[in-house]
Amino acid sequence: MNKLKIGIIGLGTVGSGVYKTLKNFDNVEIIKIAVKNLNKKRSVEVPSSMLTDNPYEIVNDPSIDVVVELIGGVEPAYSYLETAIKNGKHIVTANKELLAKRGEEIFNLAEKYNRVILYEAAIAGGIPIIMPVKTILAGNKINKIHAILNGTTNYILTKMDTEGASYEAVLKEAQELGYAETDPTGDVEGFDAAYKITTLATIAFKKKIKFENVYREGITKIRKEDMKEANEFGYKIKLIATASIDENDNADVRVHPMLISKDTTLAHIDYVTNAVELNGFPIGKVVLSGPGAGEFPTASSVVGDILAIAAEFGKSDYILPMMRCNHSTKANPVKIEDTYNKYYISITAPNAIGIIAKIGTICANKNISLSSILQRGVSKDNTADIIVITEKCQEKLLREAVEELKDCTVNSIIRVAD
Amino acid sequence: MNKLKIGIIGLGTVGSGVYKTLKNFDNVEIIKIAVKNLNKKRSVEVPSSMLTDNPYEIVNDPSIDVVVELIGGVEPAYSYLETAIKNGKHIVTANKELLAKRGEEIFNLAEKYNRVILYEAAIAGGIPIIMPVKTILAGNKINKIHAILNGTTNYILTKMDTEGASYEAVLKEAQELGYAETDPTGDVEGFDAAYKITTLATIAFKKKIKFENVYREGITKIRKEDMKEANEFGYKIKLIATASIDENDNADVRVHPMLISKDTTLAHIDYVTNAVELNGFPIGKVVLSGPGAGEFPTASSVVGDILAIAAEFGKSDYILPMMRCNHSTKANPVKIEDTYNKYYISITAPNAIGIIAKIGTICANKNISLSSILQRGVSKDNTADIIVITEKCQEKLLREAVEELKDCTVNSIIRVAD
Repeated sequence: MNKLKIGIIGLGTVGSGVYKTLKNFDNVEIIKIAVKNLNKKRSVEVPSSMLTDNPYEIVNDPSIDVVVELIGGVEPAYSYLETAIKNGKHIVTANKELLAKRGEEIFNLAEKYNRVILYEAAIAGGIPIIMPVKTILAGNKINKIHAILNGTTNYILTKMDTEGASYEAVLKEAQELGYAETDPTGDVEGFDAAYKITTLATIAFKKKIKFENVYREGITKIRKEDMKEANEFGYKIKLIATASIDENDNADVRVHPMLISKDTTLAHIDYVTNAVELNGFPIGKVVLSGPGAGEFPTASSVVGDILAIAAEFGKSDYILPMMRCNHSTKANPVKIEDTYNKYYISITAPNAIGIIAKIGTICANKNISLSSILQRGVSKDNTADIIVITEKCQEKLLREAVEELKDCTVNSIIRVAD
Repeated sequence: MNKLKIGIIGLGTVGSGVYKTLKNFDNVEIIKIAVKNLNKKRSVEVPSSMLTDNPYEIVNDPSIDVVVELIGGVEPAYSYLETAIKNGKHIVTANKELLAKRGEEIFNLAEKYNRVILYEAAIAGGIPIIMPVKTILAGNKINKIHAILNGTTNYILTKMDTEGASYEAVLKEAQELGYAETDPTGDVEGFDAAYKITTLATIAFKKKIKFENVYREGITKIRKEDMKEANEFGYKIKLIATASIDENDNADVRVHPMLISKDTTLAHIDYVTNAVELNGFPIGKVVLSGPGAGEFPTASSVVGDILAIAAEFGKSDYILPMMRCNHSTKANPVKIEDTYNKYYISITAPNAIGIIAKIGTICANKNISLSSILQRGVSKDNTADIIVITEKCQEKLLREAVEELKDCTVNSIIRVAD
């Protein structure tokens, strides 16, 4: 049998899972693995003759057919892949940041050299999403995605919800357990989810979405009180990556916390599980959920990509035509100020007298209808805590209305899913 | 462009959806459609020159590359497909019964003639499941499936649950709404789900599962009282298609009602939605859910299959290698009597005195541990209604124990998911 020859760059958590899993397949052979530190103790036993600390020994090795890139970050990963493609290698990568920021370039380069780039592991870890969207769902016009794409933040929000704990307390615990990094910015500020939705929206809508046009807001301001109130109104709070496109290719792509109705599947996706809800025609709605990260789930996707190349390798020069990426036409970005949303607003008013009338008047003047309003009594110091949930209104007008509430304390503004 | 030439057999609900959807794709051309009645009024406008009432005009037409079979049932569908394959055509089918009963034959024939059979629409309608299992999940050893594969029964059970209505009442309503057929046997007795799990287990386990070895039990005996009790114990009742395989290729494949914990995703799959939960290594657990039937969702899968062939057609004689089916090795069937399950049992005892002791003794003698037992008082006539939930025990012993309760009325025995 003509074995597919693999070179792997990166032998961390995912790389180890890939190494262990690939051993079961006799149509694939790992030739070389590039690591940072040749002497590091690892969870996996790899023959030292297979290791190198120079990734160029892989991307320049003429015997290697496929380069598997598992180091993350834009550089030096991009340079490695660029050289690999120019040397005629197919690529499998889990690098969401590189795809979000330089996907267009790298896909164009692969097209030019007639090579394929597969990246199932880069979006939603183990969940089969990229290959289904590009193959069996290819007959669909997908126009809306709602997804939970970051396990760390979903873990934190689930814990805040079930334990009534604060963001800070849960983050600390998550860091101790290794679910959150020492510098959690990439997760909690929504960068990770934003990278993923950039690429997922691009392939689902078949239009290039630019990362810099993706609106992004993290979970650091979510209070345990918001969790409690959301529950009472029939919602859960989740960090949602959403993307929608209209008939004129206006694409609204963003990552921010949302109140999600308990009636939906996404509201029940808890802890580190991820989920992607796709809406389109003719399919209607499908939801795919599963492990969004981790050694073995991510390895499942990387190995799936490798086996897809192996199955077609040698048959023809032009393999996996459905998996090619055409990023040539761009979507028109929609600014967050121009979007229409429902909002949950938590307000503390310094003077309870007439406050409901005031809120009502300000909103009415901005054409904002109120769906729910709740005041639970008045404090001894005459302050009042008020929860407002609006009907759909324009973000710009909502912000103007909030501005006019300047003598109140606005504790939280969180968007509410339809 | 070299267009892929299609012939369709059957222009019912799914066929119409396929026709409408395919019009958007210029790499595919419908040549001919076989219908039963040329003069029937249809929801879709098709040029009469395209119609024939003789399917052999399609399977024998040398200009046609792919035959799309949408009539269902084993014969005459099998004969049409046999001829089509011998004439060198690729096949796309939504025929779950044919695949379950004669899948091995038809796949072997296709292999012999170097043609591919795709059947995404046959299992779980619009949910992407076959192509993901065979491609991006190919690196996994899948060993367990839990699925809701029949929309009609899930609709009935959901209605019974939410409205506290009886099976008979909801069935009647479902028939009036067109969700259940006049003769509902195929759905409510579990045949439809059994066809689907036969093929799904075969491709997921890579071992031939024989339809006649699939244990099957319908929902007709589920009482509204069982729904209520299940809820109180933290469960929902669903018609579950399950399959598991051990390291010695012993395959336990069945369809029957189950109590499913409300903590699981499947418990929240309601009405006509379907869902498939796959467990394997390295992936862990993934759940795919979506519309299991209907004109457009099913069309999505049929069109996805057609586009997959179109993408590779003409490139090489041997296309879509990952989608080929090898049914050559068989799994060893496990008899239902030999399986281990938890059970929910509803009993009415004619004489309340000492009944709990009696149940306890009978179960203990058969090595059956009880997980929960509930008696809500005693009726005026000295009868008592008792609910028992067992720990895992062998079906054979459970049946023997129930036999010994012959002076009680055993209202229901329903298996409980782990």
